[in-house]
Amino acid sequence: MEKPYVVGIDIGGQTAKIGLVDARGNVLVQTAIRSDETDDYKKFINDLCDAIVKLVSKEYKMDQVRGIGIGAPNGNFYKGTIENAVNLKFGGIKVIPFTEIMSKKIGLPVRLTNDANAAAVGEMTYGAARGMNNFIMITLGTGVGSGIVVGGSVLYGHDGFAGELGHVTMVRKNGRLCGCGKTGCLEAYASATGVARSAREQLEATDRKSLLRNIPAENITSKDVFEAAMQGDELAKDIFDFTGNMLGEALSDFIAFSSPEAIVLFGGLTKSGDLIMKPVVESMNANVMPLWKNKIKVLFSQLNESDAAILGASALAWEIKD
Amino acid sequence: MEKPYVVGIDIGGQTAKIGLVDARGNVLVQTAIRSDETDDYKKFINDLCDAIVKLVSKEYKMDQVRGIGIGAPNGNFYKGTIENAVNLKFGGIKVIPFTEIMSKKIGLPVRLTNDANAAAVGEMTYGAARGMNNFIMITLGTGVGSGIVVGGSVLYGHDGFAGELGHVTMVRKNGRLCGCGKTGCLEAYASATGVARSAREQLEATDRKSLLRNIPAENITSKDVFEAAMQGDELAKDIFDFTGNMLGEALSDFIAFSSPEAIVLFGGLTKSGDLIMKPVVESMNANVMPLWKNKIKVLFSQLNESDAAILGASALAWEIKD
Repeated sequence: MEKPYVVGIDIGGQTAKIGLVDARGNVLVQTAIRSDETDDYKKFINDLCDAIVKLVSKEYKMDQVRGIGIGAPNGNFYKGTIENAVNLKFGGIKVIPFTEIMSKKIGLPVRLTNDANAAAVGEMTYGAARGMNNFIMITLGTGVGSGIVVGGSVLYGHDGFAGELGHVTMVRKNGRLCGCGKTGCLEAYASATGVARSAREQLEATDRKSLLRNIPAENITSKDVFEAAMQGDELAKDIFDFTGNMLGEALSDFIAFSSPEAIVLFGGLTKSGDLIMKPVVESMNANVMPLWKNKIKVLFSQLNESDAAILGASALAWEIKD
Repeated sequence: MEKPYVVGIDIGGQTAKIGLVDARGNVLVQTAIRSDETDDYKKFINDLCDAIVKLVSKEYKMDQVRGIGIGAPNGNFYKGTIENAVNLKFGGIKVIPFTEIMSKKIGLPVRLTNDANAAAVGEMTYGAARGMNNFIMITLGTGVGSGIVVGGSVLYGHDGFAGELGHVTMVRKNGRLCGCGKTGCLEAYASATGVARSAREQLEATDRKSLLRNIPAENITSKDVFEAAMQGDELAKDIFDFTGNMLGEALSDFIAFSSPEAIVLFGGLTKSGDLIMKPVVESMNANVMPLWKNKIKVLFSQLNESDAAILGASALAWEIKD
């Protein structure tokens, strides 16, 4: 292999993390720049390119780099654009031709996709889904994202935006308002913010005792709910059951769609371990068609979380042909 | 093209329809045999082979036939098997190695898939989805089936059974029992039998006037509901609105999965035309993520219904390499 490395970049609302990665999924060197300081996307791309060159040149050479993979909110794989990314300071304009500008500037091929798809590619290349051709990655963070792999490739669909499984409707009547503008979306319940919201709702609607009553309601996070549950708090445990049940119901429908070998869960909420996994698996198997009952694996991501976003993005760059 | 024809076979609960098809999708000659007379699958396969040879040999030659495509309930494309097909008299045994036995007997390559996937391939080859690489076929017949096309190929998933969209859960509380063993499935509402069931429920639960009260409740069919609606019967029209609304909600979730260019509706219930199409499209656009609002086409199948099943199955055989 003439060019043994790729660069992976994870663009989030506050920072863009940049890493140089080898074929075994080792992040050799890494850095980060702020992504919330400019609303000028051209300036941001320039800063990103400068940071890459600086990072790589310390110990390696730019001509050892095969290409660059980027995971970004609202990233479009087909077009290499970031579209309507309201969570990015520089994402205010409708369509940013990100890879085109960046590739010209840095002289390397650049691939871009959304963050959940990048995580799926990372999991397939380096993680729990190695060797799998059909699986679904569900990211349980601030929101709920997904990357669907079918026949060894990410499912992008007609327009590049397939795999928005956080926005299937789980509650049809009086569902919570979701950030996407719909109501009742999975994301409004099975995300970290959804868990905190469930806790606040329960505390307000009942007078059940709970450790969570020691925290001002508006400050409660999913981490607080997790810690209370670990101390045996019944209300907090019920929140995880409620969340896991709903996620399991959603997974049973996803299985009817693409019949995956496994579903891989990724992101902050997976730190709650069995608290979330147990109700997810029970509810999935209770709601799935008989032909798939107890046959679909549910796994936690095996990627080291601090590296995962970079690895996922970098994996895109391995698909670039020489 | 040395071998200009293929054979398409549609196996249903009562008959197996057989047709010889050319590359333009013309059914040149066709016949049918009973599928409900023997519980011996080997005898059925023998009868099928005899019927094919007899049909083709009348005006054509067997060595002009490139291969055979079959659509069958519970057909598995990967394995060429029919598995647990409780609706087929000869389907009682768990796994029938259908294509293996048939191919040996008749000396031609044989491909098999389930009926809805066959319909999707047919629609892509000859019908409303020509030129489309990403679409979803929904068959609205006695049951609700689906064939999902992604990147120009049918989505089969890990085990060959992907695309069971009739069995996503639409009603989570007190949902109707579905033939699959689950409750609340789309199929229990949006199929022809579901429409009849909705009518019976409405007639029993209310004392609304309706032309349908002239028919003994247990005899009401979806066709009766259609005819009443066409005569302006309000209750019957409400049944179509209810059914179309639910189907539209389901479609909005399917879009979030695979982001198709179009959704093609096929089967008996599509004969109701605007009565079903209007609420489907309205509900789909009301429930879909904003990025897809008013962007996804909903089309009726363009395949001539009497030929459609044969054409769909035959299209599989064109994919056989020489």
